[in-house]
Amino acid sequence: MRENSTARPHVLPVAPTSGRLRPLGLDEVRITGGFWARRRQVNASATLDHCRHWMERAGWIGNFRAATEGRVHRDRRGREFADSDVYKLLEAMAWQAGPHTGAAPDAGIAALTETIAAAQEPDGYLSTAFGRPGQLPRYSDLEWGHELYCYGHLIQAGVAEIRTRGEGELAKTARRAADHVCAVFGPGGIEGVCGHPEIETALVELARATGEQRYLDQAALFIDRRGHGTLPDTEFGRAYFQDDLPVREATVLRGHAVRALYLAAGAVDVAVETRDDALLAAVVRQWETTVARRTYLTGGMGAHHRDESFGDDFVLPPDRAYAETCAGVASVMLGWRLLLATGDPRYADLAERTLFNVVAASPSEDGRAFFYTNTLHRRSRGTAPDAHAESPRAESGLRAPWFAVSCCPTNVARTLALLPGYLATADDRGVQLHQYADADIATTLTGGHAVALRIRTDYPHGGRVTVRITRTPDHPWTLSLRVPAWTAGATAWLVHPDGTREAVAPGTAAVTHVFRPGDEIRLDLPVTPRWVGADPRIDAVRGTLAVQRGPVVYCAESVDLPDGQDVDAVRVDPSTSPQDGPAGTVLAPGALTVRNRRPDPSWPYTPPEEAPAPAERRSEIVLVPYHSWANRGPSTMRVWLPTV
Amino acid sequence: MRENSTARPHVLPVAPTSGRLRPLGLDEVRITGGFWARRRQVNASATLDHCRHWMERAGWIGNFRAATEGRVHRDRRGREFADSDVYKLLEAMAWQAGPHTGAAPDAGIAALTETIAAAQEPDGYLSTAFGRPGQLPRYSDLEWGHELYCYGHLIQAGVAEIRTRGEGELAKTARRAADHVCAVFGPGGIEGVCGHPEIETALVELARATGEQRYLDQAALFIDRRGHGTLPDTEFGRAYFQDDLPVREATVLRGHAVRALYLAAGAVDVAVETRDDALLAAVVRQWETTVARRTYLTGGMGAHHRDESFGDDFVLPPDRAYAETCAGVASVMLGWRLLLATGDPRYADLAERTLFNVVAASPSEDGRAFFYTNTLHRRSRGTAPDAHAESPRAESGLRAPWFAVSCCPTNVARTLALLPGYLATADDRGVQLHQYADADIATTLTGGHAVALRIRTDYPHGGRVTVRITRTPDHPWTLSLRVPAWTAGATAWLVHPDGTREAVAPGTAAVTHVFRPGDEIRLDLPVTPRWVGADPRIDAVRGTLAVQRGPVVYCAESVDLPDGQDVDAVRVDPSTSPQDGPAGTVLAPGALTVRNRRPDPSWPYTPPEEAPAPAERRSEIVLVPYHSWANRGPSTMRVWLPTV
Repeated sequence: MRENSTARPHVLPVAPTSGRLRPLGLDEVRITGGFWARRRQVNASATLDHCRHWMERAGWIGNFRAATEGRVHRDRRGREFADSDVYKLLEAMAWQAGPHTGAAPDAGIAALTETIAAAQEPDGYLSTAFGRPGQLPRYSDLEWGHELYCYGHLIQAGVAEIRTRGEGELAKTARRAADHVCAVFGPGGIEGVCGHPEIETALVELARATGEQRYLDQAALFIDRRGHGTLPDTEFGRAYFQDDLPVREATVLRGHAVRALYLAAGAVDVAVETRDDALLAAVVRQWETTVARRTYLTGGMGAHHRDESFGDDFVLPPDRAYAETCAGVASVMLGWRLLLATGDPRYADLAERTLFNVVAASPSEDGRAFFYTNTLHRRSRGTAPDAHAESPRAESGLRAPWFAVSCCPTNVARTLALLPGYLATADDRGVQLHQYADADIATTLTGGHAVALRIRTDYPHGGRVTVRITRTPDHPWTLSLRVPAWTAGATAWLVHPDGTREAVAPGTAAVTHVFRPGDEIRLDLPVTPRWVGADPRIDAVRGTLAVQRGPVVYCAESVDLPDGQDVDAVRVDPSTSPQDGPAGTVLAPGALTVRNRRPDPSWPYTPPEEAPAPAERRSEIVLVPYHSWANRGPSTMRVWLPTV
Repeated sequence: MRENSTARPHVLPVAPTSGRLRPLGLDEVRITGGFWARRRQVNASATLDHCRHWMERAGWIGNFRAATEGRVHRDRRGREFADSDVYKLLEAMAWQAGPHTGAAPDAGIAALTETIAAAQEPDGYLSTAFGRPGQLPRYSDLEWGHELYCYGHLIQAGVAEIRTRGEGELAKTARRAADHVCAVFGPGGIEGVCGHPEIETALVELARATGEQRYLDQAALFIDRRGHGTLPDTEFGRAYFQDDLPVREATVLRGHAVRALYLAAGAVDVAVETRDDALLAAVVRQWETTVARRTYLTGGMGAHHRDESFGDDFVLPPDRAYAETCAGVASVMLGWRLLLATGDPRYADLAERTLFNVVAASPSEDGRAFFYTNTLHRRSRGTAPDAHAESPRAESGLRAPWFAVSCCPTNVARTLALLPGYLATADDRGVQLHQYADADIATTLTGGHAVALRIRTDYPHGGRVTVRITRTPDHPWTLSLRVPAWTAGATAWLVHPDGTREAVAPGTAAVTHVFRPGDEIRLDLPVTPRWVGADPRIDAVRGTLAVQRGPVVYCAESVDLPDGQDVDAVRVDPSTSPQDGPAGTVLAPGALTVRNRRPDPSWPYTPPEEAPAPAERRSEIVLVPYHSWANRGPSTMRVWLPTV
């Protein structure tokens, strides 16, 4: 094992030592404006403090103090995995602070780290929920206890410290925990796995960051151990824990969505580091089937409320979509790893969809309230969540400041913090752009040749992406740009430095050229509203269409309908295209029907000939970006719009 | 309070002292053949023993022995409410044994009763889950502990004993528990309610059976206490426990479906005994809205898997229908009480639908396996449940012998056992028939005039119901027959004793006549297959139709499709009517489409113009009664059949 092969360690969230593409780090990519810059600014200025505030208030940070002071067995608060959110906040703070600039260490990180480290036991064990007098013994509840899951997030925070400012107390704490895991769960130790995967991907990243082979070996051991029924069966079944089948044998993601996606991400990490093509191929196959059959239009994953899990193929009810925010985060994590391993732009396509329609949908505009689930159809107006209490996670009418299970806010925070790391990669031939945002990129190509790019765009509102070469060697290299899959059916244009226009198909558009500083390459993407239909096997949306504009999914929201109508009155007319409306809206041709349309309001099932055509009023239906819904008070909402 | 006003106590599951109709008991109505006779025969010969066997094996009966022997704190098995299933089995055994015939007491009932009674504490408290050294204290967990819920079922078993053979040890045990409840939860006692309603309806019935006013007062107190937040809030919200709103203020059933329906049944009981018209009107209003907006075509109630609860209005996904069997049982219980109170045949309409499509769907043909949930669409073939272990309740692919939470088998057993009690009523003018089965009825009209009827029919397969008067006074009285709501759109005929035919509309057909023995009245119901559509606000079934034949809902099952096709290939043609097929099947005109119909199998959402019309093969789709599905091995199934 060794740190990534470039000359000096980059500020990389994910740093594989093999694979088709080399990621560009936060020291190489800076987001300078636009959609994601605004989101990151809110994250930095509001969300991080908000999370810390709530975790103090909810006692989750206090749990570490209680552990240090020997009173945690009676004073502990929150769920068994509450430690993990403190770690995720630390990770988010580290990435958001970004590359070390010589300034003093972040005082907030240092103080939190000290609180955590003080609770670590001499052998590296660290949990506020288990193992002390008056608590259940260590590792006595691997299926629900989440001890290894918590380590995973601690280790990811430690890696963020190593990569942003070098190993400090946080990373040392993480390494002690990782060493403990290897000692206890290594060969000859406990033959178990954690009910919630996460440790796997974290251990591989720690191996990459430290060069320590044993962390990779332990991760590989956990991947191989899974699927052999070491966890007890529960009412949710073994698939819930992905313990029903070995990773190599599974053909689709199943069970709890976040668990499944974290495990798959860890499996890719192990596959890439151990050059295990069969394991990689297994995850690719699972991803393909999952995307083709178990994914919402928004990129959301996980259809079931009951167990937060994937449903059977094509079970994708919009009105009970779970589509947990964390599953969106995890899907982006998995996609990024698969993109680096294979270079296939389809992974960036899904990541873009998920970022704009799940990750961006979760936080409120002020960054202080969140959706945990991301339903595609809300039938009743939500009520304002209690501003002073933890909310139930499954409520999806209005964003809530915090949840009893509050994994999502900190997961959004760390994702926005490391987002520049998902934009671009390099390989021996040049630079690849995967996600579009105003950004400055400066990196070094093979052979030590410096290149720099300035990207300007108002994507996703506009489709023009201009890449200005600001630094370049004087020999040819290749700039590659993803042409999103959503452009199928319309025409995307690549404009070369000499002004020639080339129609480009979904996939990758590449320009190989002896660039000069000042050269501009432009991608013109056809960002217009368009109807989208669904495979008829997705029964729950039969007879409906959705509207997408670029990568952004739109929705009808009752606050935009006249006369206090609910969205169940909306009918759209697929014979005419939706058009851009004012202020970022889309106008869909259609009608509003009168509410009670049945001959017999007492029973909703009648012979079809008895149901008269509903009275309708022609109307243009105002649609707004799905990620922006529920920002104007209680409303009903739907993504899929009936045509019949 | 007094026992029902007829000359001697009848063998009545429900015996209100006021109301529009007087129920006929198991001593007055005997089911002699046909659909329900076969089900009751299987219940008597197989299901009761099956339940007892599994409760011994699972240790739930043993819990009582462990309690008696002082070792229950370490030996107890099953969930906190396991006691209740032993009581429900006792109730089922009592009703199935039926009216006392002078034979020796049922040895099985006596032995089980002895086991239970031995565990009762001196003050009447009885629970194997709480209150003994090493267990949580009595009533320390009212929201989840189910102590009062368990008493409710014990009391219903006690009432069954009183009504079938007179008060014995079982009824005495129940009365001691009821007296304890009145002492502990009465005025000045614990100001609480049970998380799971059931005690309310049980206490009212015990009041009716014993004439003891205090049981009714306690039930009324529980009804009035509910909805004031005495239970703690949980992640499921207060509506889960119906503790969000007082019963009188609620406008719809909400939260956990079985809880909601049991509570409503108890509220009707209290309303009827206390002549509280406002309370009765509140429940009627809730029933109306629930039936209009929150009920499946099958009569199934409860859409959510997560919390077994009602969803928002019109959230009725067929592929994630929960439709718990117990909710079907509870809906029939509620409907019967409302029918007795009001005389309105719509309650019997829904009960018929629920009996044929939920209650009858649960048990297997041999009565030794059950559905807990009753989905309307099964997408993947189920796997055979473990014949030797308790199955997860939410699995709905194949019936399972027993569940970790196994409320449904015993609930089906007691419902089939007392089913003759749901068939007919009397009032001052005559006799009313509500459900149709081969049956002999003998009762006494006001004034002591004996009447007897012999009903012969092969309903629901055939629509002809012949009622032969075998005993009658020589003055006019009225025979009323329910004309099911499902006959709307076709013509039902009433054939008078003189042979004249009268077209009758849905509702009630009445013949007032000076009958003579041998007179026959006939009802000819138009039992032919017909299309049924849904309110467009039930989004999940847009663009589909179902087939109903009489009260029976049909479904397509993959085992009837050629070439191993799944039911997702089915399309039906609504321009032609479905027809009767061979062997009780229905043939629906339609087509089978080829499986993978999308231009791009990798992503299920595409512009509608890119989706070509699928290749189809014209075919008649074989449909079978929904209640009979999954009796021929693993299959996929759907009730709602796509037309587009």
